Amino acid sequence: MIGIDWGSTGLRVFLIGAQGSVLQTRSSQQGALQLRGSDAYARVLRELAGDWLDYRDHRGRSLPLLASGMVGSQHGWRTAPYVACPSNAGELAQSLMPIDDTAPWICPGLIVQTPGLPPDVMRGEETQIVGALELHPELAAAACLILPGTHSKWVNVQHAQILDFATHMTGELFAVLSRHSVLGFLIPAEPEPVRLSMAAFDKGVDTARDHHHSGLSHQLFSVRTLGLTGAMSADSLADYLSGLLIGHELLAGLAWRSEAGLDAAPLVLIGATELCAMYRQALTRLAAPVPLVLHNTAPHGLWKLATQAGLINTSISLAGQS
Amino acid sequence: MIGIDWGSTGLRVFLIGAQGSVLQTRSSQQGALQLRGSDAYARVLRELAGDWLDYRDHRGRSLPLLASGMVGSQHGWRTAPYVACPSNAGELAQSLMPIDDTAPWICPGLIVQTPGLPPDVMRGEETQIVGALELHPELAAAACLILPGTHSKWVNVQHAQILDFATHMTGELFAVLSRHSVLGFLIPAEPEPVRLSMAAFDKGVDTARDHHHSGLSHQLFSVRTLGLTGAMSADSLADYLSGLLIGHELLAGLAWRSEAGLDAAPLVLIGATELCAMYRQALTRLAAPVPLVLHNTAPHGLWKLATQAGLINTSISLAGQS
Repeated sequence: MIGIDWGSTGLRVFLIGAQGSVLQTRSSQQGALQLRGSDAYARVLRELAGDWLDYRDHRGRSLPLLASGMVGSQHGWRTAPYVACPSNAGELAQSLMPIDDTAPWICPGLIVQTPGLPPDVMRGEETQIVGALELHPELAAAACLILPGTHSKWVNVQHAQILDFATHMTGELFAVLSRHSVLGFLIPAEPEPVRLSMAAFDKGVDTARDHHHSGLSHQLFSVRTLGLTGAMSADSLADYLSGLLIGHELLAGLAWRSEAGLDAAPLVLIGATELCAMYRQALTRLAAPVPLVLHNTAPHGLWKLATQAGLINTSISLAGQS
Repeated sequence: MIGIDWGSTGLRVFLIGAQGSVLQTRSSQQGALQLRGSDAYARVLRELAGDWLDYRDHRGRSLPLLASGMVGSQHGWRTAPYVACPSNAGELAQSLMPIDDTAPWICPGLIVQTPGLPPDVMRGEETQIVGALELHPELAAAACLILPGTHSKWVNVQHAQILDFATHMTGELFAVLSRHSVLGFLIPAEPEPVRLSMAAFDKGVDTARDHHHSGLSHQLFSVRTLGLTGAMSADSLADYLSGLLIGHELLAGLAWRSEAGLDAAPLVLIGATELCAMYRQALTRLAAPVPLVLHNTAPHGLWKLATQAGLINTSISLAGQS
């Protein structure tokens, strides 16, 4: 099959073989934020994976296509309405949204609506969660999953269900504050990747931990004052800011995890290697349990959902593998 | 005298008579962020108040000039190094920084350096505080002052000293999040002033209050989800965001006030009418004491500092009044 992870700012396509194994990966910067209208999506997908789209098996059948992420949002290729939590892979698979014969099926996002609380939503992460539970079935009984990123997700998994989740805007706060606020004045604009100043990152996490109640909006100003007074070098301020923001996310998230009754359940990080390393380091500063770290579980999730939805039959799966 | 309140984004000049009474006010958008070099500052000041600068009394003396705010920062007209807290009007007056005969004296900002905590700084607010204490001498014994704005300041006044203060980036967070983040996508760009949706503002404050421990970075995402699900109208989202941010500031600030031992001392809001009204409303939602509200105390502060520094003598003060 062809699995597609189409987020706001980028696109990854996976040629997936038997049992969800990834045979090939390609990526593009053409995220959903830049695209308008179904023609644009179809064109970008063809540019990136036209040869995969044209593949036919001995019965003349093309490969099944499944996409998840912002591609299913209001401004995406086609809207795939949110499925309400508690939910699971089976329910998501039943709710895949077709476009047409040549376009991918679209995986819906999830919404959680707890009485008395604002709703919360995800798109794309549900597929990573399904993939993580497929790769590690032992987590289905109970686990607290953390998917760090622009909009980090904390996920409460129990009894093979995604019961509840909470978003933290950590990555986006870092981006807008370092680019558009007074905090960015002192942060040098450097080409990424920059070398991480672990000491500054740790100091940010520790400051969040030790003076949590003074509030995030107060602590953020210390990025400026530490730079202004020369107490911290300009090169280190971005990492200190990361530490502050991730520290605050983890403190709130770990409290949420306790309330959810998940203190004894495994803690799992799912995401890019470097980002997971930062979260893992911060968890250590907070004396939290050592997490299991998983990278890119989206292809396994796409494969699992496609299988459960009956999009894949064995002969195609074997053809894809050859 | 001529008092000058020169901030990052704007400039106000006051023609000040006896006892600090304001005879005339003029303003300009030429803030310190837009200006580079002393010539630029001198030119802008002359454009706005050249006639005041040219005024001479019967002895041929020009009016004393005093400026406070970002005009004294590293990138200002001339750097006036921070004075360390605890401090007071007398100490600030002794530390006024001269430029030359025709330019204003510059009031330094304040810095607080508590061992084990990042430093905190202010520039301009110290003058408003001095003005507030001049207008309400009863506050000098003990008071908690709140100066809401881009960088809100909470100030601990005791024994006629500015003992300590804490900055919250509330106004700047509102600006960068509504302009540059995903939260802004759903917020209509409207010319200010827009009518305040008090219900949405209150809901933001209440959400901050009732679910404080879920964290600011989590709660911010509800601006998006409430808009996305239609649970709140697009017109109301900006006010809900204000309520969330101000609510979080007040919760952290009121805890800080308790730690400072100021629970029995007066609570004072100093700032623009509309902003103070929002903070006052939010304080009500948090069952906090009704604050005393003061507007624009900067001219009184400038006058007090100029008097204590000996820049003003009676004959000039009377001439300025005529």
